[in-house]
Amino acid sequence: MIAVLKQGTSIEQRNSLCDWFKSMGLEVHISEGKYHTVIGLIGDTSKVDIELLEGLSIVESVKRISDPFKNANRKFHTNDSVVDVCGNKIGGGNFQMIAGPCSVESYEQIITIAHRVKAAGATMLRGGAFKPRTSPYDFQGLHDQGIKMLLEAKKETGLPIVTEIMNANDLPLFEEVDVIQVGARNMQNFDLLKELGHTDKVILLKRGLANNLKELLMSAEYIMAGGNENVILCERGIRTFETYTRNTLDLAAVAMLHQLTHLPVVVDPSHATGVAQLVEPMAMAAAAAGADGIMIEVHNDPAHALCDGPQSLTPDQFDRVAARVMKIREAMK
Amino acid sequence: MIAVLKQGTSIEQRNSLCDWFKSMGLEVHISEGKYHTVIGLIGDTSKVDIELLEGLSIVESVKRISDPFKNANRKFHTNDSVVDVCGNKIGGGNFQMIAGPCSVESYEQIITIAHRVKAAGATMLRGGAFKPRTSPYDFQGLHDQGIKMLLEAKKETGLPIVTEIMNANDLPLFEEVDVIQVGARNMQNFDLLKELGHTDKVILLKRGLANNLKELLMSAEYIMAGGNENVILCERGIRTFETYTRNTLDLAAVAMLHQLTHLPVVVDPSHATGVAQLVEPMAMAAAAAGADGIMIEVHNDPAHALCDGPQSLTPDQFDRVAARVMKIREAMK
Amino acid sequence: MIAVLKQGTSIEQRNSLCDWFKSMGLEVHISEGKYHTVIGLIGDTSKVDIELLEGLSIVESVKRISDPFKNANRKFHTNDSVVDVCGNKIGGGNFQMIAGPCSVESYEQIITIAHRVKAAGATMLRGGAFKPRTSPYDFQGLHDQGIKMLLEAKKETGLPIVTEIMNANDLPLFEEVDVIQVGARNMQNFDLLKELGHTDKVILLKRGLANNLKELLMSAEYIMAGGNENVILCERGIRTFETYTRNTLDLAAVAMLHQLTHLPVVVDPSHATGVAQLVEPMAMAAAAAGADGIMIEVHNDPAHALCDGPQSLTPDQFDRVAARVMKIREAMK
Amino acid sequence: MIAVLKQGTSIEQRNSLCDWFKSMGLEVHISEGKYHTVIGLIGDTSKVDIELLEGLSIVESVKRISDPFKNANRKFHTNDSVVDVCGNKIGGGNFQMIAGPCSVESYEQIITIAHRVKAAGATMLRGGAFKPRTSPYDFQGLHDQGIKMLLEAKKETGLPIVTEIMNANDLPLFEEVDVIQVGARNMQNFDLLKELGHTDKVILLKRGLANNLKELLMSAEYIMAGGNENVILCERGIRTFETYTRNTLDLAAVAMLHQLTHLPVVVDPSHATGVAQLVEPMAMAAAAAGADGIMIEVHNDPAHALCDGPQSLTPDQFDRVAARVMKIREAMK
Repeated sequence: MIAVLKQGTSIEQRNSLCDWFKSMGLEVHISEGKYHTVIGLIGDTSKVDIELLEGLSIVESVKRISDPFKNANRKFHTNDSVVDVCGNKIGGGNFQMIAGPCSVESYEQIITIAHRVKAAGATMLRGGAFKPRTSPYDFQGLHDQGIKMLLEAKKETGLPIVTEIMNANDLPLFEEVDVIQVGARNMQNFDLLKELGHTDKVILLKRGLANNLKELLMSAEYIMAGGNENVILCERGIRTFETYTRNTLDLAAVAMLHQLTHLPVVVDPSHATGVAQLVEPMAMAAAAAGADGIMIEVHNDPAHALCDGPQSLTPDQFDRVAARVMKIREAMK
Repeated sequence: MIAVLKQGTSIEQRNSLCDWFKSMGLEVHISEGKYHTVIGLIGDTSKVDIELLEGLSIVESVKRISDPFKNANRKFHTNDSVVDVCGNKIGGGNFQMIAGPCSVESYEQIITIAHRVKAAGATMLRGGAFKPRTSPYDFQGLHDQGIKMLLEAKKETGLPIVTEIMNANDLPLFEEVDVIQVGARNMQNFDLLKELGHTDKVILLKRGLANNLKELLMSAEYIMAGGNENVILCERGIRTFETYTRNTLDLAAVAMLHQLTHLPVVVDPSHATGVAQLVEPMAMAAAAAGADGIMIEVHNDPAHALCDGPQSLTPDQFDRVAARVMKIREAMK
Repeated sequence: MIAVLKQGTSIEQRNSLCDWFKSMGLEVHISEGKYHTVIGLIGDTSKVDIELLEGLSIVESVKRISDPFKNANRKFHTNDSVVDVCGNKIGGGNFQMIAGPCSVESYEQIITIAHRVKAAGATMLRGGAFKPRTSPYDFQGLHDQGIKMLLEAKKETGLPIVTEIMNANDLPLFEEVDVIQVGARNMQNFDLLKELGHTDKVILLKRGLANNLKELLMSAEYIMAGGNENVILCERGIRTFETYTRNTLDLAAVAMLHQLTHLPVVVDPSHATGVAQLVEPMAMAAAAAGADGIMIEVHNDPAHALCDGPQSLTPDQFDRVAARVMKIREAMK
Repeated sequence: MIAVLKQGTSIEQRNSLCDWFKSMGLEVHISEGKYHTVIGLIGDTSKVDIELLEGLSIVESVKRISDPFKNANRKFHTNDSVVDVCGNKIGGGNFQMIAGPCSVESYEQIITIAHRVKAAGATMLRGGAFKPRTSPYDFQGLHDQGIKMLLEAKKETGLPIVTEIMNANDLPLFEEVDVIQVGARNMQNFDLLKELGHTDKVILLKRGLANNLKELLMSAEYIMAGGNENVILCERGIRTFETYTRNTLDLAAVAMLHQLTHLPVVVDPSHATGVAQLVEPMAMAAAAAGADGIMIEVHNDPAHALCDGPQSLTPDQFDRVAARVMKIREAMK
């Protein structure tokens, strides 16, 4: 860690600061420039609160040289982590396709879709039972009934299931769930993350709409610090000024995360774009960018054939996407 | 609500869609253009799921004409709401200053600061007992002990207290707290909002880092839909590309919110800028923009005089800010 | 075009507005709701200044239903445009690789790199002679000497050349240049765009850092309105809050642009990410997203082997990228 | 300047890099950590190309300690610059109000508005003769005729005039113009900035929609490096995800710029918000934030009374804003 002191800092102030650093067991190197003094700190700087340091009246700026995340850091764990979901491996060269409807709506719906996406090559089934909705007046999900339906679909098809949690108090309902999803809005719900760190469930952690990669990794760290290393990261678009797409899918994040961490990274092109026609090209691009998996919304509702959800694919469309993604995967070998 | 249909939509598809709208009790107006058909919907469109509609394969775009928030909407409640905190009124021309440390650290600290900020004109005391921190390795607050210290400070000074909640399970600890703060990261923790809607506490709802004003108002709506109308909104900066300040304080949001809603709006210039020297000008600007209150971090730590927190003011600095803000308020009458 | 009037608009004001629309030759449809009146306009609304209309005191909001771009619009020109650069076709299924150094530095440098990238499969040579730099103290390019060196490299290798213009006054120097690049910072330098519209050169138009797709297409429209239809669009990253990468590459823009316009779209992963290790995965992802070409920085400087530019690949690295991109292209057939 | 080397950098590579720094006349300090080596550079680092350095394969990150701007830097010029416009001083405690229409439309229009805004307290007249418009089909301004009308208005009222330049070739038309405005879209039109640096005109430099404060100051540096120190900076909103306002007015930038530079800073609340009702509160907030002036759009068109431009005030509204801003200025003394 490096701290640059402001012009006009007195020797006493500087020494007082250095003594404080030394009291934390850090080695201190001082280098005097014409306009600035630079203090280099060597040792375990993870205990230094960078915001506190930046706030010192004599400090101009601070730069952390080592990353603040430990368990998730590739530097200390160079091999890819491989997460196992009922025998389906993800990470370390293993690729999985997760598909299913935004919300579980009925037993028939989820069974029908489960069979279709399995036939197309999906290896996990997604479906929301607890739905975070911007408006209190929108449909909020079937809750425990939705989870029961997912478990039925798992029994019928053998597909492990992925579903979102919004509240740690609901954890008992997730006992048989294979992958617990933490949604973008809860990426920094630290109390929820801590609770999940005390389980042994696989956690799919989605990046928040305005969160950078460091914050995503720090949230993974909350889970891992509790002892649960089964974390899969998920890029699903960030919020920008562009309005043609719902969010801006940040595929460079996939490649960057692979440098920063050993954890697997999947991509959700459905929520990222919010536009059904963009899901195919973005699923293919995600595979080409090195994603360890993709998660796609698929919906099949013959009774309301008009409505396929803003970004959902029909099962037929998904057949095509899955086949094309597999061809990209082949080409990358 | 208006829906624009895509070129090439058949009469059957159009009629099927219109029948669906009519089944929801809506009046339907069709107007045919050369390239597009526009469907106008009149009636209670709050039940129409706009995302679902946008997802229809025949729909090009949808525009909601009425706002999706009801309880918070100024259109249906033209007078300013005035929220009362132990006799301190906020909103409708009433202005309050909230001040205190980022975290409660000790009994002595909080009492000292409480006396100082009260003397300078603050009418409420803030202090964090539960601290959302990006890193699991950073200080997380004194929890119930911190709340006890705040209540002691209230007993000593008479200042009502404001402190953040991170988990609805902690609500019993907040029984004597006057204002419960929902932090930026929890603005869309909908389960928490629902629980707060069932209390009669004053809720200070901070805008999320990447949330627009509509989403902020929808989150207020979650609280109000539960029956609790004591909501104060708080602008505290949004995330942008600019890095000289921690966030970008959006003061136009204050004036815009006053047009959209009757709820009071306060501004937190400390977290918004992250730079102590910017707190004074931004507090003054907030007052001039019509804010109903400001919330400022003040810290006093003689033992570590070097460290005043990245954005905290000393009590002496706060004296000056409070006096200058009051002069602005005078000038606005 | 649809205009929603504010509550409380009088019949006289409404009629006065409608008369104004009629005087522009538009057909006017009025539909009265409980809280709002909606005016639908049919006909050629391209002359209606939307900003002016939004500013009317009686207008709540305006929605344009047809896009404001004409020449670039796929609706009026359904087939892909194919741009021909000395026999290298781009668009409509044709894919080209453009490679070369950020700046032309010397005759030897550009010749060496040209030979290497040609051998790897590049079909056009890029190199900057006029360099837009944030600082007036940074290297600004070799100007006319740089263009001469590029032309020499073209003579030696047969590769057509791509180089950036910053000032319409320099056009005479670009007479033999094959593709004139307009950089991100000049995407809305409308005087420059107009001048380029009067040439018959192929123009590579880069998206500005904070520009949405509509603005990019309107800038293309400036060139096309002058009679020059040889426009290639280029996605090169937008500015967001994420700092691990220089910009955020928006690959969904490629797929979205293919829906909105018939113009070819290329991707520049080098400038978009600013990180050499991310260029390969992003070049592959761009190809998989359906880009009509990629543009990559390649630099070879044996004298300063340490320095390969923040995002430049070595020729050896480019060999590998080119081969892998070609495999992705194969897989997409 | 500090460079952090990657893990695994060899001694030879490190020494080679250090030799390169020494060849630039820099003093080099090496400090070895467990995981990283940090190189501190002391001396004139303005010649070190930071992007080049960041690109070195052995460099993990680089931090510039001194700012890259010199002429605009408050560190080397501690007193506020005061710019004089025909006797109206701006900066160093002097405050001016600039007002007028977005576009000059006719002789009568500009004269009428000039008289009205002068009566209300404005001390300079703004009006666009060259208009940068997103669409090639929108009104582009009256060009030389517009400038003539402005000069007539100046003759009649004595108000100095402010108008935008889009092309250095038009400079001869600006000979009698008092303040030349560089618009947001041209903030990094470096050729234009260089030309303006060779004049002795006062330049009003607007911040680009996606430009940070460092880039704004570097653009000022382009003008000042040419010898013209008469630069006024202008904050006019940045582009964010929020859509209720056209842009997000960044008032903390005003206070931050006052710390970074000695140049005066004015605020344009009209373009920043795009909403007439927000202009008054934002003008007042700008004054309270310490702005050295404000620039407001005022339009008076009796023939089209319906239309007051999306963000323009009527002269009557401006009277009120000007009076209230003056009260804020009074309160700040």
